[in-house]
Amino acid sequence: MSRLLSDGWKIIQEGFSTEENRFFESIMSSGNGRMGLRGNHEEDYTGDSLKGTYIAGVYYPDKTRVGWWKVGYPEYFAKVLNAVDFIGIKVSINGENVDLAACSFTHYRRELDMRESTLKRSFTLIGKDGSEYEIKTERFLSYADCDLAAIKYSVTCLTDDADLVFTPFLNGDVRNEDANYDEKFWEYVSGEAGRSLSFLTVKTLKTNFNVSAAFSWELSGADVLGNEAVSHNRGEFVGNRIITKVEKNTTVTLTKYVSVISDRYYNADKISLIARQKAVEAKKMGYRNLFEAHRVKWDNIWRMGDISIKGDVKAQQGIRFNIYQLNCTYSGEDPRLNIGPKGFTGEKYGGSTYWDTEAYCLYFYLGTREPEIARNLLEYRYDHLEKAKENSLKLGTRGALYPMVTMNGEECHNEWEITFEEIHRNCAITNAIKVYTEYTGDLSYLYQKGIDVLVETSRYWVSRVTYNPQKDVYMILGVTGPNEYENNVNNNWYTNRMVKWSLQYTVETLNDMKRSNKNLYQEAIDRLGLTESEVDCFKNISLNMYLPVDREKGIFLQQDGYMDKEQTLVSELKPSDLPLNQNWSWDRILRSCYIKQADVLQGLWFLNEEYSIDVKKRNFDFYEPRTVHESSLSPCIHSILAAEIGLKDKAHEFYLRTSRLDLDNYNNDTDDGLHITSMAGTWMSIIHGFGGMRIKNGELYLAPFIPECWEEYSFHLVFRGRILKITVNKQGTAVLLEKGDPLEIFLFSERVMLNV
Amino acid sequence: MSRLLSDGWKIIQEGFSTEENRFFESIMSSGNGRMGLRGNHEEDYTGDSLKGTYIAGVYYPDKTRVGWWKVGYPEYFAKVLNAVDFIGIKVSINGENVDLAACSFTHYRRELDMRESTLKRSFTLIGKDGSEYEIKTERFLSYADCDLAAIKYSVTCLTDDADLVFTPFLNGDVRNEDANYDEKFWEYVSGEAGRSLSFLTVKTLKTNFNVSAAFSWELSGADVLGNEAVSHNRGEFVGNRIITKVEKNTTVTLTKYVSVISDRYYNADKISLIARQKAVEAKKMGYRNLFEAHRVKWDNIWRMGDISIKGDVKAQQGIRFNIYQLNCTYSGEDPRLNIGPKGFTGEKYGGSTYWDTEAYCLYFYLGTREPEIARNLLEYRYDHLEKAKENSLKLGTRGALYPMVTMNGEECHNEWEITFEEIHRNCAITNAIKVYTEYTGDLSYLYQKGIDVLVETSRYWVSRVTYNPQKDVYMILGVTGPNEYENNVNNNWYTNRMVKWSLQYTVETLNDMKRSNKNLYQEAIDRLGLTESEVDCFKNISLNMYLPVDREKGIFLQQDGYMDKEQTLVSELKPSDLPLNQNWSWDRILRSCYIKQADVLQGLWFLNEEYSIDVKKRNFDFYEPRTVHESSLSPCIHSILAAEIGLKDKAHEFYLRTSRLDLDNYNNDTDDGLHITSMAGTWMSIIHGFGGMRIKNGELYLAPFIPECWEEYSFHLVFRGRILKITVNKQGTAVLLEKGDPLEIFLFSERVMLNV
Repeated sequence: MSRLLSDGWKIIQEGFSTEENRFFESIMSSGNGRMGLRGNHEEDYTGDSLKGTYIAGVYYPDKTRVGWWKVGYPEYFAKVLNAVDFIGIKVSINGENVDLAACSFTHYRRELDMRESTLKRSFTLIGKDGSEYEIKTERFLSYADCDLAAIKYSVTCLTDDADLVFTPFLNGDVRNEDANYDEKFWEYVSGEAGRSLSFLTVKTLKTNFNVSAAFSWELSGADVLGNEAVSHNRGEFVGNRIITKVEKNTTVTLTKYVSVISDRYYNADKISLIARQKAVEAKKMGYRNLFEAHRVKWDNIWRMGDISIKGDVKAQQGIRFNIYQLNCTYSGEDPRLNIGPKGFTGEKYGGSTYWDTEAYCLYFYLGTREPEIARNLLEYRYDHLEKAKENSLKLGTRGALYPMVTMNGEECHNEWEITFEEIHRNCAITNAIKVYTEYTGDLSYLYQKGIDVLVETSRYWVSRVTYNPQKDVYMILGVTGPNEYENNVNNNWYTNRMVKWSLQYTVETLNDMKRSNKNLYQEAIDRLGLTESEVDCFKNISLNMYLPVDREKGIFLQQDGYMDKEQTLVSELKPSDLPLNQNWSWDRILRSCYIKQADVLQGLWFLNEEYSIDVKKRNFDFYEPRTVHESSLSPCIHSILAAEIGLKDKAHEFYLRTSRLDLDNYNNDTDDGLHITSMAGTWMSIIHGFGGMRIKNGELYLAPFIPECWEEYSFHLVFRGRILKITVNKQGTAVLLEKGDPLEIFLFSERVMLNV
Repeated sequence: MSRLLSDGWKIIQEGFSTEENRFFESIMSSGNGRMGLRGNHEEDYTGDSLKGTYIAGVYYPDKTRVGWWKVGYPEYFAKVLNAVDFIGIKVSINGENVDLAACSFTHYRRELDMRESTLKRSFTLIGKDGSEYEIKTERFLSYADCDLAAIKYSVTCLTDDADLVFTPFLNGDVRNEDANYDEKFWEYVSGEAGRSLSFLTVKTLKTNFNVSAAFSWELSGADVLGNEAVSHNRGEFVGNRIITKVEKNTTVTLTKYVSVISDRYYNADKISLIARQKAVEAKKMGYRNLFEAHRVKWDNIWRMGDISIKGDVKAQQGIRFNIYQLNCTYSGEDPRLNIGPKGFTGEKYGGSTYWDTEAYCLYFYLGTREPEIARNLLEYRYDHLEKAKENSLKLGTRGALYPMVTMNGEECHNEWEITFEEIHRNCAITNAIKVYTEYTGDLSYLYQKGIDVLVETSRYWVSRVTYNPQKDVYMILGVTGPNEYENNVNNNWYTNRMVKWSLQYTVETLNDMKRSNKNLYQEAIDRLGLTESEVDCFKNISLNMYLPVDREKGIFLQQDGYMDKEQTLVSELKPSDLPLNQNWSWDRILRSCYIKQADVLQGLWFLNEEYSIDVKKRNFDFYEPRTVHESSLSPCIHSILAAEIGLKDKAHEFYLRTSRLDLDNYNNDTDDGLHITSMAGTWMSIIHGFGGMRIKNGELYLAPFIPECWEEYSFHLVFRGRILKITVNKQGTAVLLEKGDPLEIFLFSERVMLNV
């Protein structure tokens, strides 16, 4: 059996078991925004494993699989692909192939160092003849040059001299486990195995993404006694066999320098050449120098985004793991990229973009990185606006409906109750514009691009609402709210409320522009062909939007008819009922009052300043006991609101559910990969929950408390050009301006002036 | 181009075009309850064709294909299989293979004679050298011995002598076009090609149904000049090459006698032997005698079930086509069989059983056949009661929930909104018990078996309703009604109303049994473990069932919230919007007020005597203009109700939509096969609609009218051991008792005594 050790900066596996291999592969994942790897072994491993190498933006449109087709379903589901395996190094010692599923070994350790972003492994191999070898590996995906990776593989003979053969390789014959029709997604383009340099170019079917990988290598600690190029499998496997000998008590190390280039960044004709050049240059630079440049980048990330927790090493490990993985997934330099729910850690959910990005991830990147990073998330949606208009047209409405799941702006999801009805996603996207603008003070996106998104989504709402002449209100019929445990409901409070807000924000923004920037205003009006009566219509719908409430209980109603459900509580469920989605048939879930994830409460978070503590408290008290949190995105919102209404223990309890979700494998699904987007929610639980951080009218508010079992926590916060460090302990809160101009903030509602 | 000719007893295609071949293959389908065939050519045909040979009850559990799995989904969808091709006869004339996709020909005619159930074809073949041949074929599936088929294939030389080779064969290498994963469903067991007798035994994968086919043959009009056994394709193709010569102006005829035996009726070890014996015996009996026995059976069917229409040959052809196809599909001798929506005419809907059987087909078989036939439909559900209980348990409820789609009692459907939520099907099944009992006067099914179905479905409802303490009513949340254009609604009036009735009928039946048959009552109580408090609970829920109404409009409400929808009419739709399900995305359909098929009106039909003409009229006037009839089961109910409330033209208009649905290819889908179950609805439109036929308290009511454009129509009706003939013309109505004891009926509310 293996153990996961607690450590503030490292994820450590001690010991090894085949059954847990996928789990540890998942939590040992790393990435540099451009590519990512699961924590797979470099040498052969024939036991259970999910091989995973992913290249950002390189996807395959896997033909839709449904039971019963419905008009409007997308033709494909975009999948980020398991790509060319470039870490591979076959190792043979005295003729025995190293494969931990077949060999004897002791002292296995796999260790992800999050501070410097390296994956290290070590174990003692015991040969068939009883001889022993210490094996150590180390690798990183460069954060300094995202096309590069480097791997060191060392063998030390402990008992006797040994014959050693290394076969570093590239393997393009890879598949996705989740292919809908067991198809292979790649085809061979070109390649060559060489004694000092090998390369392989492959191409995705249908989408025609070209990817070229190359590697060079060096050997230290022994002489090369033989070297031959090796190519198998119609050229999809290229590499070379390096024969050497290692003496007792000495160490021989193979270093593999890999470059991976896609035609998303370079001309397809050139990528193979560039890949080779970069592999050669990397070797010239050497492992140490490459690593140093990489480490500097990560230092900067931690300097801006770290959260330190004293007195609870598991909490410390948990939060750093979340921060680390988010930065591995998205580095923010390319607005064509986004954040898949599993990032580069598994195949599930296809690596596509969900509303998670705007509802959760955005806050994290705003608080921990330069504003350009968050802005690129907004640019992504702006660039997809035309596709969102096409999507709306396809569904018989006007304006823009953003897709539920997408890679390139086209809808990929294929369940009608989600695809067609979970339309609240539009509001997370418009809310993100507001959040970004308030956070950064940068009006340029809002006035030049965001306004188009606001107007086109408003136009969608105009065509999607139903006017009810009896009641003289606007309703929204047939939707699925964030609580996906109800489908096709009428007047989901969250959706109606966010639409009301979104229309209002559009109108207000137009008014602001008219007042403050006539030119941009006029440009927008002309570009959008916007009429006054249209704007009046936005205003009118916003003012007359129907919002279901229960006056007696003083709460907002999840949806029409919610109180007709049997009102039972989660505490009344048998443990064997949970999780509901693995134990109850769908109809039973739907007609129950149980809520999958924050829905009314999600609205109270987004529109936080519009509601009193009392309102928040009543709704929290009503909905929290009915919520099963079967989405990883639920506990964080509950944690934040619990903190706000003074339920500190509850806030901490919810924080625990989210911070070590994957490390402690709460949902028993870490094998499939990590819950990347909900990691941003964990960060929010500390910053907006424990820290009480809010932004109102462009000003920063903090109201921190510290959970009982912690001694101290401190976090960095990037805010309008500053880096702040907030330290909270039993004695109180200290706010330090580490970088940037003086700033006045609100601490527990008191104005405080910060200077460097 | 080909033409469909009108004829009272025949379906005639004159001329041929490849594009229309699937259409004509569908409408030329025939069957004998045990097996069925599409109107495929016997000789090779390499053009577009849907080959279809189906054997009742022989199915394959095709692995479920869904986009997103949900707990409770079935593992498979049961498919009636395209089975061994036994009609095949390859024909070569002067070395040229006859294939109408490749050869020149004139005078093509394909003709289904419904009175005698034969399929005949004729055409003049023009050889490459300009020589001409008249080809005639004739075949039937014996209704007298359902294991047998016979085929005559004649060639007449019109211009010159010719060399002729017949290759009659069996081909087991067949596939379903609709296989979910392109799998082959059959495997070879054994077979032998022989010069006088060939046979082939094949087995379905997974379900292990064994099917054996054999054929013998005879040649007339010329001598056999050569004969060799032929076997290809690993033995899946067996037959023999018969070489002959035909002289100018003479006719040579090959007769092929086929037997098809499955191990559903005979021991698997014996079927191959029995198949061979029967093929030999059939040849001994000869084509003429086999045909005669077959014809007598069909005579009997027409004697009891014919409807004759004067003055409108298309209407005549239409109604006979419906009656014919229903009898081809279900002969009623085996309670393990049922009626698939496409019968033996295509692959769609898998040949499985839907609520169509009880809601529509039952009425037809009660009115046109011996009561045992209808009773077997009830036995089918009784035999599946344990499976229905398992199904309910799987969904977390008690009692019995019958499947939406089934072959053997297990649920096969895999869309949550149908599978889990279209639960009203239970009520069609309990209603069928009442209809059968009232119609036949036979209480034995009700008291010995039906009561179990009533109690177990009632138990299901007890566990499925939601008590609403505020309103002190029972509600049914999260259902899909017959109108499948709304999903997951609360309190669908039809469902709630039928459940209310079903519980009440259960209680009344128990009371009746207690009064009239203490023994059977006590047996039932003991067998079912039924307590008094349970029965009180049935009663209480029935009495306090919530039924949504619009008091102002005086109508029953489709479901909660229906009036919040935008109230537009079908007449306001653009033609390009229709059919909605091919033009609108699902969410748009769902939030519209448009109704797919009779829903409230279906309830007013089932509970016909409980509602006044006024109530029916108000609801018809409201719902009819909102109904798009995109189910073939909708127009018939509208026709019946229109007739009842005095809208004779409307009644006729709806009749037209249903009676020639397939012949005139209204829905542009006849290629896939025929709408078998809705054909029973067509029959109902005449009998219950135009004829005004009802049964109340076991007495027969008639109130016929005649559509404007008809001169006269007459129909037979089987009722409690009698055969009645009702003739309606402009002068009035005549009711003749053709067979059976004297009977008092109600004609236009007047009591009339009928004697032979």
